[in-house]
Amino acid sequence: MRKILLIPDSFKGTMSSGEICRVMKEAVHEYFPFAEIVSIPVADGGEGSVDAFLSAAGGEKVILNVKGPYFKEASSFYGILPDKTAIIEMAAAAGLPMVGDSKHVEKATTFGVGQLIAHAAQAGCKRIIVGLGGSCTNDGGTGAACALGVSFRDSLGKAFVPVGETMGQIAAIDVSRLNPALDGIEIITMCDIDNPFCGPQGAAAVFAPQKGASEAVVKMLDENLMHLAEIIKRDTGKDIRDIAGAGAAGGMGGGMAAFLNSRLQMGIETVLDTVKFDSMLEGADLVISGEGRIDSQSLRGKVVIGVARRAKKAGIPLIAIVGDIGEDIEGAYAEGVCAVFSINRVAVPFYKAKQRCRRDLALTMDNLMRFLSVTGLKKKL
Amino acid sequence: MRKILLIPDSFKGTMSSGEICRVMKEAVHEYFPFAEIVSIPVADGGEGSVDAFLSAAGGEKVILNVKGPYFKEASSFYGILPDKTAIIEMAAAAGLPMVGDSKHVEKATTFGVGQLIAHAAQAGCKRIIVGLGGSCTNDGGTGAACALGVSFRDSLGKAFVPVGETMGQIAAIDVSRLNPALDGIEIITMCDIDNPFCGPQGAAAVFAPQKGASEAVVKMLDENLMHLAEIIKRDTGKDIRDIAGAGAAGGMGGGMAAFLNSRLQMGIETVLDTVKFDSMLEGADLVISGEGRIDSQSLRGKVVIGVARRAKKAGIPLIAIVGDIGEDIEGAYAEGVCAVFSINRVAVPFYKAKQRCRRDLALTMDNLMRFLSVTGLKKKL
Repeated sequence: MRKILLIPDSFKGTMSSGEICRVMKEAVHEYFPFAEIVSIPVADGGEGSVDAFLSAAGGEKVILNVKGPYFKEASSFYGILPDKTAIIEMAAAAGLPMVGDSKHVEKATTFGVGQLIAHAAQAGCKRIIVGLGGSCTNDGGTGAACALGVSFRDSLGKAFVPVGETMGQIAAIDVSRLNPALDGIEIITMCDIDNPFCGPQGAAAVFAPQKGASEAVVKMLDENLMHLAEIIKRDTGKDIRDIAGAGAAGGMGGGMAAFLNSRLQMGIETVLDTVKFDSMLEGADLVISGEGRIDSQSLRGKVVIGVARRAKKAGIPLIAIVGDIGEDIEGAYAEGVCAVFSINRVAVPFYKAKQRCRRDLALTMDNLMRFLSVTGLKKKL
Repeated sequence: MRKILLIPDSFKGTMSSGEICRVMKEAVHEYFPFAEIVSIPVADGGEGSVDAFLSAAGGEKVILNVKGPYFKEASSFYGILPDKTAIIEMAAAAGLPMVGDSKHVEKATTFGVGQLIAHAAQAGCKRIIVGLGGSCTNDGGTGAACALGVSFRDSLGKAFVPVGETMGQIAAIDVSRLNPALDGIEIITMCDIDNPFCGPQGAAAVFAPQKGASEAVVKMLDENLMHLAEIIKRDTGKDIRDIAGAGAAGGMGGGMAAFLNSRLQMGIETVLDTVKFDSMLEGADLVISGEGRIDSQSLRGKVVIGVARRAKKAGIPLIAIVGDIGEDIEGAYAEGVCAVFSINRVAVPFYKAKQRCRRDLALTMDNLMRFLSVTGLKKKL
């Protein structure tokens, strides 16, 4: 074994992708001390995404001040990969942890996220990836848009920076004076949920309560998002209401599509393209991926399948290490997963399995690497 | 892959060794249709042991009438392997299922077991294996001994066939007129428990209650076993009280040692020797074993380790498929187990895991065989 790629998703609620990579790497190194081990923690767009990309692809972290969630200066950051792709996690400028116990989703802005985008554009980045997730906002991305030159006017013609509670006052939107630094830049929005902009499954109804919104505030925010969607349609011609993911991060998904013409895409393809996974596969003997649970749902854009498709195309065997193995995983095998091993070693309920998952992962990897060191592995599929 | 040996223990309380072999064989055949697959269901001495040996080694089943548990004629059987080893399971002549709801352990006899032994000896068998387990008796093997020429006399000098409740009346034992057909025959007693003959961990205290004994009857049986042990010591010079396994099957273990000079041994070595496992290993690419739970206890004579030691000596890789994987299995790896895979695929408690164990075993084997068909396997360790 000369080269092994580790590219697991997080096990939601138990272990992060980075942690899993570390445990996996240790076991691989134990049995294949001379193998090159490449760890690719998978970013999902939320907190930690910049570090994940930088650790997978290299590059540098840019530290700068922007306006925080309540318009006060705050220290923030984004990443620039060696190929001049910028990685921005919106949580770094509008993240829920930034407001502590002072959660007022209806007053919070994404303005700082727009500043990060502007900075990256001015720094010469030709591609900007904005990861959604972990936000404290519900402003439909209007704050970020303001920071990038979009203007929102009320019925008196006065420009203002909308927040959740004031989006209802938007009477006109002008996108004609967008920051020229954005010309020719591809902006990709990463999000792993597919909620619509507004309505019962929309941003406010589903996510605002965890950002501190009462029932009355949720209702107000949802009405305001609906109003914003109407004005967007009238003034830009774009109907964002039912774009999958428009409701991510307080409607930031919809705003990115409407104001910045950004493509919304699920995480794993973005990650694989950005870290140049296909080149990484060259010379690899084995890929190890994983996720908290593999099942027929996994065929829809989840990490293991996304990785397996690429590995299969390159003829490299892929093993999935997972928490639970659900029903009906034939499809996963068909997509290039050679084998699936659960870390469950004893018959115990989940609350107990969760407590021992790190050790179970380590032991499962130890067993597998030991086995491969004995049985060998064909070079190519 | 040209030849694969399947030799799992039962998963106690869920699947028999034979069932497991069938499930395993199906999965192996699916991915290696041209491989020779040898199934060796492991007998533990209890019900089904004769069939297990016959299915593993070939041979014929001899059907005959003997005295049943309550001295009535009953149809019974034993097996003769091609090398003239007889396989007797005592459950076929003194088995708990033979008495149905009419459980009177204090009146039941092992006489029929002695008749089976006599028949095998007269048929020219040079080696007789007697499997203990699943009995309805607690006669210390005195019934079987009677059938083979041992005489038990009461204080008036009258010969009788003792049962549990009358063992206390034994005043003298004479083993000098043992059936001459037994001359030069090796008799091996298979038992998988190591309880002593009598006392708090003895045959009566631990096993008589499940054979229908009340507390008073247990006490009486235990006292009678102790009495029997004393007379045995006085009249034969053998102290059987603390032989490990003397308390198996209502003291049958002790009786076999005392009256027939039989060696008591744990199951797996007996099985491996009897089916000539070392010859079976010739030309094999892989051995698959398994048990309900592997842990540090497994190092003490359990199936997987017993098989692994042989496989290791022959340089054939062995994989263990198990229910639970306990702590501290480093020792198992050291003994020749290359890899251990649990059939647990989802984090659920045992009562649920049990319900789905057949399917989980099938899916685990499918995954593993699929994997081996992709990755290949080195010829030799």
